[in-house]
Amino acid sequence: MHMKFSIERGVLLKAVAQAQSVVERRNTIPILANVLIEATDGEVRFRATDLDIEVVDQAPATVETQGATTVAAVLLNEIVRKLPDGALVTLTDQGGNGRLTIEAGRSNFQLATLPKEDFPVMASSEYEASFTAPAPVLRRLFDKAKFAISTEETRYYLNGVYMHVAEGEQGRVLRCVATDGHRLARIDAELPEGAEKMAGVIVPRKTVNELRKLLDDDEALIEVSVSETKVRFTTPSITLTSKVIDGTFPDYSRVIPQNNSKRLEVDAAEFAKAVDRVATVSSERSRAVKLSLEEDRLVLSVNAPDSGAAEEELAVAYGDERLEIGFNAKYLQEIASQVDRENAVFLFNSSGDPTLMREGDDTSAVYVVMPMRV
Amino acid sequence: MHMKFSIERGVLLKAVAQAQSVVERRNTIPILANVLIEATDGEVRFRATDLDIEVVDQAPATVETQGATTVAAVLLNEIVRKLPDGALVTLTDQGGNGRLTIEAGRSNFQLATLPKEDFPVMASSEYEASFTAPAPVLRRLFDKAKFAISTEETRYYLNGVYMHVAEGEQGRVLRCVATDGHRLARIDAELPEGAEKMAGVIVPRKTVNELRKLLDDDEALIEVSVSETKVRFTTPSITLTSKVIDGTFPDYSRVIPQNNSKRLEVDAAEFAKAVDRVATVSSERSRAVKLSLEEDRLVLSVNAPDSGAAEEELAVAYGDERLEIGFNAKYLQEIASQVDRENAVFLFNSSGDPTLMREGDDTSAVYVVMPMRV
Repeated sequence: MHMKFSIERGVLLKAVAQAQSVVERRNTIPILANVLIEATDGEVRFRATDLDIEVVDQAPATVETQGATTVAAVLLNEIVRKLPDGALVTLTDQGGNGRLTIEAGRSNFQLATLPKEDFPVMASSEYEASFTAPAPVLRRLFDKAKFAISTEETRYYLNGVYMHVAEGEQGRVLRCVATDGHRLARIDAELPEGAEKMAGVIVPRKTVNELRKLLDDDEALIEVSVSETKVRFTTPSITLTSKVIDGTFPDYSRVIPQNNSKRLEVDAAEFAKAVDRVATVSSERSRAVKLSLEEDRLVLSVNAPDSGAAEEELAVAYGDERLEIGFNAKYLQEIASQVDRENAVFLFNSSGDPTLMREGDDTSAVYVVMPMRV
Repeated sequence: MHMKFSIERGVLLKAVAQAQSVVERRNTIPILANVLIEATDGEVRFRATDLDIEVVDQAPATVETQGATTVAAVLLNEIVRKLPDGALVTLTDQGGNGRLTIEAGRSNFQLATLPKEDFPVMASSEYEASFTAPAPVLRRLFDKAKFAISTEETRYYLNGVYMHVAEGEQGRVLRCVATDGHRLARIDAELPEGAEKMAGVIVPRKTVNELRKLLDDDEALIEVSVSETKVRFTTPSITLTSKVIDGTFPDYSRVIPQNNSKRLEVDAAEFAKAVDRVATVSSERSRAVKLSLEEDRLVLSVNAPDSGAAEEELAVAYGDERLEIGFNAKYLQEIASQVDRENAVFLFNSSGDPTLMREGDDTSAVYVVMPMRV
């Protein structure tokens, strides 16, 4: 059980940081706190899992002796983070003494190891569909949907983003949907080749967050593989495999209003700031903001008997009849902050019906928010 | 009970921010959550208190109607913070309706008020001594001492910085001392004119933190007034008055070793980083770091049976006999981070005796740290 390799500190940190973030902080099973380090020819793999998600980072290294062992992921990450930038780090497992030695300059660490045989490697799967998508496309699909993921554990089938193939206005699309029953996000992208026969999968919240770290590079191409039970995202150096949520995502299409005709167009940034300001006076429990609409004029108001009241007027484009409608302030701010363009378009029906929001006239990202009584 | 004035948003925010930070977040007495706003001729005063500390901020304003009222300090601060930079803010109390109106552009807020008569204004004091000190001098005295303030409530007389006149090596000095029984900081400055007859006072931790906000301007001159029960710090725009801790600060001079002769000189930043690195492997409970000294060589080491071990070597200046001595890692890092110069000088006696630290050969700032068994 020997192993020895040298690796640049920055390269090591990137690989270990990704691995340790998958590790759950409170573990009853000791080996799940560890990262499996496998040194092969010219390359080292760092593998971590919480039994639902597995991440494998490959990094180039000067391998003197091939081998494998496991050490505490969070501790290893802390140590590497504190080493000076540019340092060459040598990791050695002499075998037998249950210690991994980490050397860099005049620093020397000995970390307790656990046998590599005890490390649970995720079973491999047959993936029925596989496609490639540019990182910015996946980033948009998941970033714009994830705020609406439910945190209610009893509605476990809403605790993720539903990625599937759907019929859009201009043909079939790759679509991500999330909802918590109060608001919903539906984001479409052009259907990549090979995705057509993909089964719809609910990607858990934690996986969505881990995936995000793979999507920062605008030039990267991500390979996506999907089976009924698993989803896998692969870059040249990282493989993220995750179980999907075993449940049925509800028929969201019925929730999306089709005939809302009262159209408000407003500067999204100004709107979000105004909502934030008026919400200041509201009590924590009921953060209700009232929107009062009349021709080209929007008044946002909050009335909190204990602390006071707030009102703010915005010049907007609105040509329909007077309307008063209330929303949770946080929900309004969150959907307004999804808008990448200048203007947000709201489509209302009545003060009791779900409201639709789009970015200008683009229908590839639509949001629904339920009103509340004010 | 009318009042009306207009004030620039940035000026208002600075005054209100200072006031609200004195207000305790959990108040059983409602009026203590409020700031007293008093508009007089061309000037507005913002006053807040927790009954131990009172801060008064004066700010220039265009006062239309002189008057006074009180509103929730934290809420007012939140609102002003969210208003756009450069906005002109108008505050109006119409009287009678128990509401203060805040207007800026198209924003309008109404905050609940409480009668100004109910606001507890701190009784004025006779100050026996009064002197003026440049902000950087006070900043150094308190910044370098405060890390050693005790948080043990039972030792209330250690819950602050002891500011007093003392006999230094080159005559009388203005001195600040703090200790928690494990470490001690003693910082001296030239005695300002007028301070000679000052009674020693223990300035509470919260006051030290609030005072810090008055000391950022290098050019500012701070007026300090001291009585047996109170201390007051005054800038042209802010008056911070605080009760002092009613207790006797212990005779710290006996704690400061006089005859420690084993001299270690080390790069302070390198030392702090090395301590931080080796401490990574130590368990939370006992963060002990061992220093092993021999000629021009220092080895820092930590041995934590559960997780592993760490060792780091530093090139240092040391010419005395071999010595092994243990310290709490956090204490070592904190005193090392007080060093403004390049080198820290440690003076040891034995592994069981208090250790002294200085910045080079400067005796105007000395630190004492107790060793621990390793």
